[in-house]
Amino acid sequence: MSRRLLTNAKLATFTANGAAYGLVEQGALVIDGDRLAFAGPDQDLPRQDRELPSEDLEGRLVTPGLIDCHTHVVFGGNRAREFEMRLQGASYEEVARAGGGIVSTVSATRAASEEDLLASALTRVDALIREGVTAIEIKSGYGLDRETELRMLRTARSISRKRPIHVRTSFLGAHAVQAEYKDRPDAYLEEVCLPTLEEANEENLVDAVDGFCEGIAFSPEQIAKVFDKARELGLPVKLHAEQLSNLGGTKLAASYGALSADHLEYLDEAGAKALKKSDSVAVLLPGAFYTLRETQMPPLELLRQEGVPIALATDCNPGSSPLASLLTTMNMGCTLFRMTPEEALAGVTREAARALNLEDQGCLKAGMRADLAIWNVDHPAELSYRIGFNSLQKRIFGGSE
Amino acid sequence: MSRRLLTNAKLATFTANGAAYGLVEQGALVIDGDRLAFAGPDQDLPRQDRELPSEDLEGRLVTPGLIDCHTHVVFGGNRAREFEMRLQGASYEEVARAGGGIVSTVSATRAASEEDLLASALTRVDALIREGVTAIEIKSGYGLDRETELRMLRTARSISRKRPIHVRTSFLGAHAVQAEYKDRPDAYLEEVCLPTLEEANEENLVDAVDGFCEGIAFSPEQIAKVFDKARELGLPVKLHAEQLSNLGGTKLAASYGALSADHLEYLDEAGAKALKKSDSVAVLLPGAFYTLRETQMPPLELLRQEGVPIALATDCNPGSSPLASLLTTMNMGCTLFRMTPEEALAGVTREAARALNLEDQGCLKAGMRADLAIWNVDHPAELSYRIGFNSLQKRIFGGSE
Ligand SMILES: [Zn+2]
Ligand SMILES: [Zn+2]
Repeated sequence: MSRRLLTNAKLATFTANGAAYGLVEQGALVIDGDRLAFAGPDQDLPRQDRELPSEDLEGRLVTPGLIDCHTHVVFGGNRAREFEMRLQGASYEEVARAGGGIVSTVSATRAASEEDLLASALTRVDALIREGVTAIEIKSGYGLDRETELRMLRTARSISRKRPIHVRTSFLGAHAVQAEYKDRPDAYLEEVCLPTLEEANEENLVDAVDGFCEGIAFSPEQIAKVFDKARELGLPVKLHAEQLSNLGGTKLAASYGALSADHLEYLDEAGAKALKKSDSVAVLLPGAFYTLRETQMPPLELLRQEGVPIALATDCNPGSSPLASLLTTMNMGCTLFRMTPEEALAGVTREAARALNLEDQGCLKAGMRADLAIWNVDHPAELSYRIGFNSLQKRIFGGSE
Repeated sequence: MSRRLLTNAKLATFTANGAAYGLVEQGALVIDGDRLAFAGPDQDLPRQDRELPSEDLEGRLVTPGLIDCHTHVVFGGNRAREFEMRLQGASYEEVARAGGGIVSTVSATRAASEEDLLASALTRVDALIREGVTAIEIKSGYGLDRETELRMLRTARSISRKRPIHVRTSFLGAHAVQAEYKDRPDAYLEEVCLPTLEEANEENLVDAVDGFCEGIAFSPEQIAKVFDKARELGLPVKLHAEQLSNLGGTKLAASYGALSADHLEYLDEAGAKALKKSDSVAVLLPGAFYTLRETQMPPLELLRQEGVPIALATDCNPGSSPLASLLTTMNMGCTLFRMTPEEALAGVTREAARALNLEDQGCLKAGMRADLAIWNVDHPAELSYRIGFNSLQKRIFGGSE
């Protein structure tokens, strides 16, 4: 059954057909191998495809497979006890003395074998898959030493061999300064981060290079050194920027033609214009905003005005966003950031594909991958409206169920 | 296998054993029929039970089955388009003109058959069951006419015949004034609400009587009429109170010995003291707080000081809390209301049982129902810490899997 037909579907195509969501009310899809051969209104279905083996979707909604374009799903341990301590009233210092914070995740990740890292990451990846996710980005950044950064990236790569999902890796050696290099961030970059990036790239473990530009992490000048190396290696860049303050990381990233700038709560007009000019995606991460109880919202209206594409992602990580649901992320994007359900769904399909440079994913049209999510809903807004409710009927990955 | 043993378990017993969560690190359970015959430390296991057929839980956490003590899961339609309109900038008036608000749910519920109501409610109940829920409260209140209120309650009752779950029903005729009685709330109560309550009670459809005491709903004086009827019928009461303002509904409910007062964002000290005196439970509903983007937090510290038991529930409903996850509710209780993970888990077990008068549920000890949730976690705090991640290994209901 290499070529087959899905009929009686509502399609959120995210193509420019003039309707919200690129919606086709009475649609059909032709799957040929791992590709879509047709996606559109019933009446446009080519005559020769009308007799194909077919399945009646009974009016269900079909969307592109969902894409989580910013995650840290590979890590050791968890931070539940730290979460509990804070809620019991512990101060930052008390949590730190008890071994909390990113340090605890770095220790647990360094101590974990590749098998351990894989097993725990797969529990999170499986949760995403159950919600129709077909592609995911995964970052390193909890090793901060050569060996562990490489192990994280190898683990990330192996996920696409263990599960039917696309994986894009990002090298995030510039996530934090490792304890051994305290107060010597430049030495950390020179002696650990950049050589490890070169080695990881030689092993073909790196699809993009990321960094964390913030007062508590790296300055724009330091990030520029990492991006220079990425450019030298021919790798695209992206950046955690403007989350807690405005250091101008977004402008820096845009000047390197970044795939995306992520978080962006403190983004200003110059930053938004720079993103537009560089054709970069703004990736919003409401899970971190929610967990950290932030009050500074990303400048959604500004991004709309400038026409910057907006994606949404879980930021799944053990500290600031222990969130393994892209549907909950969509609700948070609407409820907390005031995105529309259409923006939220575009943000986990078309725009997320763009943020990961997945040119054959994120919308429904002939030639694209047959990565699909089929939902028991009447209208695409329902996907963002509900909380903690999974309407997925089934997922199709490369034409296979 | 009527009597059997579960070994190598971590138990969150919620009994007063001196440990947080009533935790037993190395525990065992004996299930006899639908009851627990033993729950405690391995070494206290009676000699005669050591040779029972047994299952090794490999160190997993066992909690009482979760209890959702405040839901409106029976309703027609959904309000996703209204959610979308608001996010597209529509005013309250525009939404109302488009048929939005509770009116739309009342219309859809009246138009739905009992089969339709059941089918859609079961999708939500099943989502809760997948998270280890073994008991649920379900309210009427979207009919606001005799026939539909009765149909909602019959639907709620039938859920416990369709699924392995306990159902407690609440009559919520005093949810809103139906359009036909606009500006004549007292006439609505006299002519529709009270007679329907009597009839529903005769049909054995009512476990408790609820109301919505708020400027946009009923005054304390009007609620008192409903509660007088409940008292006459020998039914316990509960109340939606102090959600958007302080009308003194909580004090009123307490004076009737209410099982619970629910929402409570605007509760004051007198109200908290009244709850303590009447031995009522404070039921907090963070899903509505989140969805409505409220900023007035329920007075948690005051409730703690007064020693009022605190429960947590989804408030699952199509308007202000389209939330079908008690685990997400626990995270919201912690993240938004600053409850501790121990309070959150107690709030969906021991305290929720109390709010529903389920005397043989909500904690793990001999004689209680063998309603259990078994989790793939190392520590109970993980249940509140994660978002959109279901750690349930399996659920046991009345001793059966
Ligand atoms: Zn991140
Ligand atoms: Zn309610």
